[in-house]
Amino acid sequence: MTAENVVDPPHSAWLPDAAFAAVGRRRVCVVGPPQDEVLATVRLEAARATAAHGGAVVAPDASPDLLLTLSPDATSVLTSSSKGPHGDHLGTLDAADVGGFRLERTGGRVTVSAASGTALLHGWFHVVRLGDAAFAAGPGDDVDEGHAPAATLRVLDHWDNVDVHPVMGQVERGYAGGSIFYDAGRVREDLSRVTAYARLLAAVGLDRVCLNNVNVHAREARLLTDDLPEVARLAAALRPYGVRTHLAVSFASPMTLGGLPTADPLDDDVRAWWRAAADRAWAAVPDFGGFVVKADSEGQPGPFAYGRDHADGANLLAEAVAPHGGVVHWRAFVYDHRQDWRDRSTDRARAAHDHFAPLDGRFAENVVVQVKHGPLDFQTREPVSPVLAAMPRTRLSLELQVTQEYTGQQRHVCYLGPWWSEILRFRPWGEGEGDDGPTVADLTASGGGFAAVSNVGDDRFWTGHPLAQANLYAFGRLAWDPALDAAGVLDEWVSLTFAGDDGSVDPRVRAGLHAVMDDSWRTYESYTAPLGVGFMVRPGHHYGPDVDGYEYTPWGTYHFADRDGIGVDRTRATGTGYTGQYPAPWRDVYESPETCPDELLLFFHHVPWTHVLRSGVTVAQHVYDTHFAGVERVRRTAATWESLAGLVPDDVDARVRERLAEQLRSATEWRDQLNTYVLRKSGVPDARGRTVY
Amino acid sequence: MTAENVVDPPHSAWLPDAAFAAVGRRRVCVVGPPQDEVLATVRLEAARATAAHGGAVVAPDASPDLLLTLSPDATSVLTSSSKGPHGDHLGTLDAADVGGFRLERTGGRVTVSAASGTALLHGWFHVVRLGDAAFAAGPGDDVDEGHAPAATLRVLDHWDNVDVHPVMGQVERGYAGGSIFYDAGRVREDLSRVTAYARLLAAVGLDRVCLNNVNVHAREARLLTDDLPEVARLAAALRPYGVRTHLAVSFASPMTLGGLPTADPLDDDVRAWWRAAADRAWAAVPDFGGFVVKADSEGQPGPFAYGRDHADGANLLAEAVAPHGGVVHWRAFVYDHRQDWRDRSTDRARAAHDHFAPLDGRFAENVVVQVKHGPLDFQTREPVSPVLAAMPRTRLSLELQVTQEYTGQQRHVCYLGPWWSEILRFRPWGEGEGDDGPTVADLTASGGGFAAVSNVGDDRFWTGHPLAQANLYAFGRLAWDPALDAAGVLDEWVSLTFAGDDGSVDPRVRAGLHAVMDDSWRTYESYTAPLGVGFMVRPGHHYGPDVDGYEYTPWGTYHFADRDGIGVDRTRATGTGYTGQYPAPWRDVYESPETCPDELLLFFHHVPWTHVLRSGVTVAQHVYDTHFAGVERVRRTAATWESLAGLVPDDVDARVRERLAEQLRSATEWRDQLNTYVLRKSGVPDARGRTVY
Repeated sequence: MTAENVVDPPHSAWLPDAAFAAVGRRRVCVVGPPQDEVLATVRLEAARATAAHGGAVVAPDASPDLLLTLSPDATSVLTSSSKGPHGDHLGTLDAADVGGFRLERTGGRVTVSAASGTALLHGWFHVVRLGDAAFAAGPGDDVDEGHAPAATLRVLDHWDNVDVHPVMGQVERGYAGGSIFYDAGRVREDLSRVTAYARLLAAVGLDRVCLNNVNVHAREARLLTDDLPEVARLAAALRPYGVRTHLAVSFASPMTLGGLPTADPLDDDVRAWWRAAADRAWAAVPDFGGFVVKADSEGQPGPFAYGRDHADGANLLAEAVAPHGGVVHWRAFVYDHRQDWRDRSTDRARAAHDHFAPLDGRFAENVVVQVKHGPLDFQTREPVSPVLAAMPRTRLSLELQVTQEYTGQQRHVCYLGPWWSEILRFRPWGEGEGDDGPTVADLTASGGGFAAVSNVGDDRFWTGHPLAQANLYAFGRLAWDPALDAAGVLDEWVSLTFAGDDGSVDPRVRAGLHAVMDDSWRTYESYTAPLGVGFMVRPGHHYGPDVDGYEYTPWGTYHFADRDGIGVDRTRATGTGYTGQYPAPWRDVYESPETCPDELLLFFHHVPWTHVLRSGVTVAQHVYDTHFAGVERVRRTAATWESLAGLVPDDVDARVRERLAEQLRSATEWRDQLNTYVLRKSGVPDARGRTVY
Repeated sequence: MTAENVVDPPHSAWLPDAAFAAVGRRRVCVVGPPQDEVLATVRLEAARATAAHGGAVVAPDASPDLLLTLSPDATSVLTSSSKGPHGDHLGTLDAADVGGFRLERTGGRVTVSAASGTALLHGWFHVVRLGDAAFAAGPGDDVDEGHAPAATLRVLDHWDNVDVHPVMGQVERGYAGGSIFYDAGRVREDLSRVTAYARLLAAVGLDRVCLNNVNVHAREARLLTDDLPEVARLAAALRPYGVRTHLAVSFASPMTLGGLPTADPLDDDVRAWWRAAADRAWAAVPDFGGFVVKADSEGQPGPFAYGRDHADGANLLAEAVAPHGGVVHWRAFVYDHRQDWRDRSTDRARAAHDHFAPLDGRFAENVVVQVKHGPLDFQTREPVSPVLAAMPRTRLSLELQVTQEYTGQQRHVCYLGPWWSEILRFRPWGEGEGDDGPTVADLTASGGGFAAVSNVGDDRFWTGHPLAQANLYAFGRLAWDPALDAAGVLDEWVSLTFAGDDGSVDPRVRAGLHAVMDDSWRTYESYTAPLGVGFMVRPGHHYGPDVDGYEYTPWGTYHFADRDGIGVDRTRATGTGYTGQYPAPWRDVYESPETCPDELLLFFHHVPWTHVLRSGVTVAQHVYDTHFAGVERVRRTAATWESLAGLVPDDVDARVRERLAEQLRSATEWRDQLNTYVLRKSGVPDARGRTVY
């Protein structure tokens, strides 16, 4: 075989064979009906692990160390933990979707039981994750635990195009090569990698994927019609690992695909068209999940053209998918992208709340309104979207961005777990004494759950930057349990990904990865846009600094810096009034520059360059200090990584080094451009006399 | 025939049938050898004109009003005017290239004689242009004139790609649709429009076209090899109107096309490869013109890779084309496009002179070093390139940009004739009393001549904006005679383009077009980048304002604005020393902000916002004043155009109105962004209290 013929298999990510050492050394038994497709996968996994590590698959009466059993009543223990304020909605969904499992351990012997193959598979991977600890046999180690995901709906959205888009490429905002689903304008012939992907998702508890970009172009629209057989092939490749399929659809489909003269949601022919489209989708893919829609947003068609609102639009699709138990994810990312920068009274941050809060209570039961975590667009730092606290009678999902559009594009190390954790734990009604209000996780988990934009492509490491795998891992784990500690989740990922032959991780590698990654999001923040001001990236591709890049554009993303100061006045007193979209205490905390957290100061206030932060330094000096420090932190990160040479696989090492070199270059560029911009504009010199150009 | 089947013919531009009224009404005779292909075109033109207007083609003995005669000795009268300091070079070129004609008029009867068909064709169009005045029969109207182009080489460069480039599109910096040469990745089947284009060129005296983009991508490189039969088809479509074909080639061709291990210009195999390539080109296209090369510039390959210089590189190709009488246009547009913005000592404006001036005298006789008119890149205002005065022993050509990359992209009215005229008349050694030094036109015309980037595409109006046709017209006319008055050239264009049925133009139309166009370049300048500072356009596409867009990029195009001032210090005393590249008096005139012309002040000096210009106002106030005034001028332009409704063809009217609306929108955007930027940064208020955001 010549070198040209060798196609490297994709990187094993968090499922190298070594990660199965603990279970693979043991005696494993899988029990359940032979016809269940996902149960068959559990059997296959057990056989593969034990074959690799010297254990055995045994019969139930052969005293297995690990018994995995599929039984209809196995999840009864779980019902309480799976309920929340919107628990009643779950009644409209398939019971198997609850997806919990029971774990019992007696004298070091473990039994995992679940009501569905998918739930049992998730239990299997839970045990794999625990490793030897799963089988602890000492005094007090016996347990009987129910494990259920906090949210029923946990979806990865792929912004993949079938065709390569002339501007956006194949994967919009993708930084890991082409699509794993599509190549050369069609669904790939060989879908083995799609199944490998489903396996990775199952191992972190994810079970739904939307196959195409929410900006639905002409070619991609046809996935809903002509290409359903191809969608069915993709679904079949995902199904063995319990992953269900959703499609992003264009609201104009009845016209563009159906030839109708309108897409008016109240038109009977339009309703009939969507019902027939849903019927066809479920006929082709019996476990199809539903539709994802970006409507009346950034040029996508929607109900506004017919004088209808988003509830009319979403309910149209909801009616079509309801007979099949389907769900409609309707994005709240709606704003005027043709804004006039001269008009300082219009505030894009207000838009989602202005559009959606008045519609609360009008959405059908099987509609999920999908809300970006912040009011703008996945910036490195934003306040939590006030929409999340404004729609108690609506199923809301929290939309996160695993793909690092604004957080280094998988060229910078940026572990997002801590950022998501902050968001999930945020309490819109504050923290009282003994009567804390609900968290963002509480509000969304039991309603619409969690959605995130995938960071995966056909790159050998799946995610371009090998360490960006941790973000995909963390999204899955936090969607299952938002209370998890982000550093702990990272530790799990390290344990699996960097497992040595015996299943353990070299402590130097573990410590090194924590040093490189734990605080990498705050490091990234420190050398990019300061104090929550957002959008200082290059327009279009969004990589690297361009302080004024969006300042005079129609996109509604401004910082208003002048020689005197910087920031956006969003107060009720003198600004856009955006602070008033929050309930107390945040409406008041954010209203005053004295109480507003430093990291969000410029999001809420326009202040002089010489304004003294709560940290004690001026805004200008803060920019200098954090930007010099940020680059130094990147330098230390690179040195730490280099100290791991020989302890991590060579291919991973080489790729990470290449990315770290680019991160250092880019961070230096951010530092120098930000510092120079501030010095040129403010005239405030760096108190420490460092070089500013 | 249904509406879908109607393909409008392209707009007649400056050759509507009505433009031939004066000659077409008369008795015309064409004499010469039947085998001459271009003479056949003259016959065809005469037949067409007389058929349309009631005249006749007659025999020589039938007392023709206009006799056109091809005879070998017709140009003897011209030799003196076609010579200049480099006239001796012309000896290496085909004698027919001189391209002059003789015009005799006796008693209202006109005889045009020339030594080549092409020259006679140019003579024909000269008479067409003169109209009835050509046949003036009064006392003193008899003449015997020699007409010859100032420069032998007058080339239009097409930046057309065969394939549609993913970023640059089909025509790089093209604003008039796709290529007239290529479609769908190949040479068009139907080349009738190419012949129509050649006719337009012949009518303004242009006779050479380079068929492809100087950024030679992989597909386009093959024009030199596999696609020569297709190039021959294009050449055949151009040839009837006397237009010859050149190709842009990649310096790396011996490797990429020839499979050699090197493209080293001193390598014998490389030299042999280029000789064979040239032999093949001339075998396929006997009147082939030569090669155009962009080498070691913006990523294009060149001799630097082998430790050779531009003379080595150019002479390599010159040697290959010399046996065929061919010429090599070697571009001097060489600079470091990976510059560090932090490094204020490096000055892109210096680059061409630094690279090329030391090579003076080393280029082969049939090499033309092609120099952009200014040291940067076709900005609305730049000083004249000092290279033009620095290479007395080299054939230099002046490169202009007809396509309006930085001058409104054929969405803004911007008649460039006055700008080119300023450049052509510029005297690098100043204007003495009675001993003026040579002009730029003097320096280039007799050497390498003139080259320009075409503004033509497959748009119905050829140039997107119908009024942008005037720029193509003006380039041809000024290349033939750089002493022509730009307003006079525009008047010619109006007379031809807007000729009524009787060949005359409504005086309101003529006055209106002069009002709209005469000063349109200065109007464009007034609302865009001020005082010669350059580059305040959006990076990438270069349309519309982005004041800081290039400020922190590697492109070497900065203005260094801070809260105190703006501009680039290019003085010898305290700056980059660029002023020292000019001979006296300009080295001293530009050196001092007291003597530097206002319109170039920020090109040469970094001055405070409060610096008082020679005009008497501060820099900041100048920005406000010119930007408010500029928008008002555009508004008046639009009103003037609207007053012509019904007097100009409806299709032209509709297109121009659409463009004027965009121009007004864009000019307003320029005004507000520039003014806001200056106010925010300088803090200097507008003395007249107008609205700045």
